[in-house]
Amino acid sequence: MQSLGCEVAAINTVHFSNHTGYRQFKGTRATATEITDLYAGLCQSNLTDFDVMLSGYAPSAAAVEAVGAIGLDLQQKAKQKPGSFFWVLDPVMGDQGRLYVNDDVVPAYKQIIKHADLILPNQFEAEVLSGVKITSLATLAEAITAIHRIYSVPHVIITSVQLFKLSQSGSTPSPPENFLTVIGSTTRSNGSPRLFRIDVPALDCFFSGTGDMFAALMVARLREAVTAAGDHVRTAPSWVSPDTVPATDLPLAHATVKVLASMHRVLERTLQARNAELVASAPQNGVGSPDEQEKQEHLRRTKAGEVRLVRNAQFLRDPHVDFAVQEWSKEDLPAQLQ
Amino acid sequence: MQSLGCEVAAINTVHFSNHTGYRQFKGTRATATEITDLYAGLCQSNLTDFDVMLSGYAPSAAAVEAVGAIGLDLQQKAKQKPGSFFWVLDPVMGDQGRLYVNDDVVPAYKQIIKHADLILPNQFEAEVLSGVKITSLATLAEAITAIHRIYSVPHVIITSVQLFKLSQSGSTPSPPENFLTVIGSTTRSNGSPRLFRIDVPALDCFFSGTGDMFAALMVARLREAVTAAGDHVRTAPSWVSPDTVPATDLPLAHATVKVLASMHRVLERTLQARNAELVASAPQNGVGSPDEQEKQEHLRRTKAGEVRLVRNAQFLRDPHVDFAVQEWSKEDLPAQLQ
Repeated sequence: MQSLGCEVAAINTVHFSNHTGYRQFKGTRATATEITDLYAGLCQSNLTDFDVMLSGYAPSAAAVEAVGAIGLDLQQKAKQKPGSFFWVLDPVMGDQGRLYVNDDVVPAYKQIIKHADLILPNQFEAEVLSGVKITSLATLAEAITAIHRIYSVPHVIITSVQLFKLSQSGSTPSPPENFLTVIGSTTRSNGSPRLFRIDVPALDCFFSGTGDMFAALMVARLREAVTAAGDHVRTAPSWVSPDTVPATDLPLAHATVKVLASMHRVLERTLQARNAELVASAPQNGVGSPDEQEKQEHLRRTKAGEVRLVRNAQFLRDPHVDFAVQEWSKEDLPAQLQ
Repeated sequence: MQSLGCEVAAINTVHFSNHTGYRQFKGTRATATEITDLYAGLCQSNLTDFDVMLSGYAPSAAAVEAVGAIGLDLQQKAKQKPGSFFWVLDPVMGDQGRLYVNDDVVPAYKQIIKHADLILPNQFEAEVLSGVKITSLATLAEAITAIHRIYSVPHVIITSVQLFKLSQSGSTPSPPENFLTVIGSTTRSNGSPRLFRIDVPALDCFFSGTGDMFAALMVARLREAVTAAGDHVRTAPSWVSPDTVPATDLPLAHATVKVLASMHRVLERTLQARNAELVASAPQNGVGSPDEQEKQEHLRRTKAGEVRLVRNAQFLRDPHVDFAVQEWSKEDLPAQLQ
């Protein structure tokens, strides 16, 4: 966010020695009271004139509620000026079919999402929130439609779907196996979705923190795209474009294209650097028990795969690539949406 | 640091809603145990290959000791490769003749400074550490000499001295009233100081966080200057230049020039933006008690004076100005150093 010119104030919800991809970490989690107290500190000194709030991982249901109360209060403060406050919510709950938060975090998120302007679930989180199991393009559209409807949330992006794994229906060509698909939608005034998709080449490596990178870049790029769209969008409640704007011309679609381009460039460079580092720091075999060796090797590989963000900051500002944004063909929509 | 390309890991020693210049804040201080625990987390996952450590404000004597133990451990780990680890220590204790930490923080700092490579006291902190009251150019040189000697610390910068307030001695012309002077020194092999000074135009406004800005920029610029000086400095213990290098050609002097140039540009822009904001947000008179009005006005002025860092990041990378670095004339040194 800072590299794209945003002045940022952070409330840390955890303070860990490292990300959890290392499978071990030390540190502390913020309590709901600590979160609430920091916000009270901002309030008492008139420091709450935020344009955008990005909320991410919160370590308990009470912490989710505390974050939700902040979003709601900022919304209240801005209600005289539509479009002057926007809340991007990443409902961090789990991945790959598995929750990694307590069960009670799910209902807590379901409550606060009703107030968010844009949410960024992954495929699993979209299933949890919509109650729709995503097995095809049609069920994917159904899940997004359900999220718009149940939570009245005007913008949704499902941040990574492996379409080739879904059983195919309709006429939209499935991308090859080494592509990821990102699906987004902004509602029309009747609540129906305006769906777009962007296919991006997948890199053969797991990187930690890409969800946070996506969300942070989206904050900056969406604000930019909405400003470019003009005052009628910039001052519309929740920055929703007029119904006449097609899916592929939504500020949300334009922003997503830029975000994915930056991410692709940074991760491409990260992969090169990782591979070079793994060669340079080749492990010494035979030290410690097999378990210990496996652990050390995991630590080595995880560190080598750390996203090289700062040294590639120019690609955040100017990615120099362009992915195509596609409208969904009608045939891929469930019958009731065609 | 990030805007100059450094990959940074932070251990937060406090988590406050705002800086203390607002005269009110909420939030938490890290305990010594929390600091130590986070470092243990880094150690257990092999994440301690830092090139530089910058330590700043710590909220208690025990926290200072915990930070000191981290610096010492990193130094131990790097001792086979001189120059591969460098510790910049900002001994945050007070300003303008007043301690703003507990009394027991002072002896805690006096212990850990012995292990630091560069310290960045302000005038008051330099007096506390050296035991020398700074009232003239001669006593200023005496204080730096004492700091080099007592703590064996090879690099010192006193980050802001109002020379025109000191009683004059020697032949060095005193800068006009609206200048601040920054004094630095790197020891020679016999422990004597190599003193340089840089006069910079002062801006008529108090800004919070300039000490942290100075320290952070110094980390990046000193490493750059030492690398430019060549491998014989880069791999020397504590990056100390050969005795033949004059004060004005020290990497420390080159780095300080760049740091001060960036700061001047950023603060110049900040002052313009502050003045515009104070006009735009002119206070409504007569609301609340006189005390309440005074408090609201202080909050308004403090917020208006927040350093505009992110939007002026180009001046961190390329300040486009050059201040002159001057050697001290012999006459300004105490007799024993001439």
